[in-house]
Amino acid sequence: MKEYRFGIDVGGTSIKCGLFRMDGTLEDRWEIPTRTEGHGEAILPDIAASIQAKMKEKGIRREQVAGVGIGVPGPVSADGEVPQAVNLGWGRKHIVEEMESLTGLPAKAGNDANVAALGEAWKGGAEGASQVVMATLGTGVGGGIIIDGKILPGAHGAAGEIGHANMEPDEPESCNCGNHGCLEQMASATGIVRLAKKELIESGEDSILRTVEVTAKAVFDAYGQGDSLAGRVVDAFASYLGRGLAITACVVDPEVILIGGGVARAGEPLLKAVQREYEKAAFAPCKETPIRLARLGNDAGIYGAARLVDTM
Amino acid sequence: MKEYRFGIDVGGTSIKCGLFRMDGTLEDRWEIPTRTEGHGEAILPDIAASIQAKMKEKGIRREQVAGVGIGVPGPVSADGEVPQAVNLGWGRKHIVEEMESLTGLPAKAGNDANVAALGEAWKGGAEGASQVVMATLGTGVGGGIIIDGKILPGAHGAAGEIGHANMEPDEPESCNCGNHGCLEQMASATGIVRLAKKELIESGEDSILRTVEVTAKAVFDAYGQGDSLAGRVVDAFASYLGRGLAITACVVDPEVILIGGGVARAGEPLLKAVQREYEKAAFAPCKETPIRLARLGNDAGIYGAARLVDTM
Repeated sequence: MKEYRFGIDVGGTSIKCGLFRMDGTLEDRWEIPTRTEGHGEAILPDIAASIQAKMKEKGIRREQVAGVGIGVPGPVSADGEVPQAVNLGWGRKHIVEEMESLTGLPAKAGNDANVAALGEAWKGGAEGASQVVMATLGTGVGGGIIIDGKILPGAHGAAGEIGHANMEPDEPESCNCGNHGCLEQMASATGIVRLAKKELIESGEDSILRTVEVTAKAVFDAYGQGDSLAGRVVDAFASYLGRGLAITACVVDPEVILIGGGVARAGEPLLKAVQREYEKAAFAPCKETPIRLARLGNDAGIYGAARLVDTM
Repeated sequence: MKEYRFGIDVGGTSIKCGLFRMDGTLEDRWEIPTRTEGHGEAILPDIAASIQAKMKEKGIRREQVAGVGIGVPGPVSADGEVPQAVNLGWGRKHIVEEMESLTGLPAKAGNDANVAALGEAWKGGAEGASQVVMATLGTGVGGGIIIDGKILPGAHGAAGEIGHANMEPDEPESCNCGNHGCLEQMASATGIVRLAKKELIESGEDSILRTVEVTAKAVFDAYGQGDSLAGRVVDAFASYLGRGLAITACVVDPEVILIGGGVARAGEPLLKAVQREYEKAAFAPCKETPIRLARLGNDAGIYGAARLVDTM
């Protein structure tokens, strides 16, 4: 009988590993470093060795393990092939095949932002929902779409890439992707800093933000203290993100919308501002769709990876 | 053995009916009037009687029929209930249950715009693709999303409602839905007329459009004759629609995007303009996603309804 599953979240500097019971109880979590040298050729063998060591330590036999799920920073095809993962040094790599042959366990793989959404839909902020949109606000804006409890990968692995929704075609600065006016330029940590710096230049107004290092956190802190310039920055951020989520809801009409990532640590004030702008822009049948904060933080990836085992 | 299926497309004035072979060959098509009086209580019995008459005429036995699919103008829940269909006079109605008891045949139901997308994905402009986005440009802008060959209904029956994507939050005029700046206000037949009338007032320029009744067709005709004012209207239309489709592609990343509906009869010039604007706004992995014209015209609904029988 299957009693365990592993969830692995591969990042550019470390690999988060989780040992789960079948019902999603996290039994153990640990990390190993990501060795990207030599085109990242040690990454999968390191993971396999770490899984085998954990099984030995816990006295778990191979027959008790349902499988290994892996989230990676890059696109992943439906059958588990990565065309490229720049942060890991990988070119084309069939990670599912390789992992299965290294561990002798069934393996599944997915894109990390999608996998995090799956984790939150399984055991996090959208637990129990089978139609979920998640926006992850970090250095960039990532996202994931869950349909019928499964990741929607898209024809080019680009489903859920709402960070590149073109919200402002007249934006003069260009996004990392080469386009102009992507949501990521307004709603990521760096996007919020960009909006704040623009506001600080354009307005002569006094602001707490003139006295501190301008970060996304500093903007939300100043907003919490009633700083009116910071308020305008938060309004602009919320208006872009709220409208972007409202358009996303016109496309897939989810049960729940989640906001996660480092920026979401700003918590309730951020959520309230985004909800207000979402409601303005949303199509009538979707105006009441709940928008919630993600709950699993950095563990969303290992939960989602573990869930992959029975959903892909 | 199952040899036939029926596809029924219920409109506000007439009901289109199709008798199909299992492989999708259209054997016969006919229409009956939509009797909306008395809260539309005659509509389903009329359809059932028409199906039974057709079976008798063709000597088809009940055991030979796989089922009846029905597309209706309004939201439809996953189990076949309509909360309301204003154009038909219906309040809450469980059409699948009613149809099954009237005909003794298995029935399935879906929203008409979604069903048209399914028809085009089965036997039309996206034949062979299983991930499809379709925009239907008529009086309004409807849409449908096909995922893994099936309609994505959404949590409130609102998936694919890209006509209500909020593209221009500062638009002063309001959409029929009550919001401001919906794609429908720019990319429907009435939206194009609205853009043209605004341009005719704001610009002093000579234009063919000053000498004819301004319709979407007149705008594309004038554009075809090199009219520069009409050119600006087409550019504005294409920029909104192209960007709306590009954002949609960031969300679901389809294999094929289709444009259908009456406005799409403008054909290649419309398609070229939209493709150009789509490419500008689309995220890199989706820039090459083909955008095509729908092919089944008014028959998309009966094809899609017939297809419902084996996909919902």
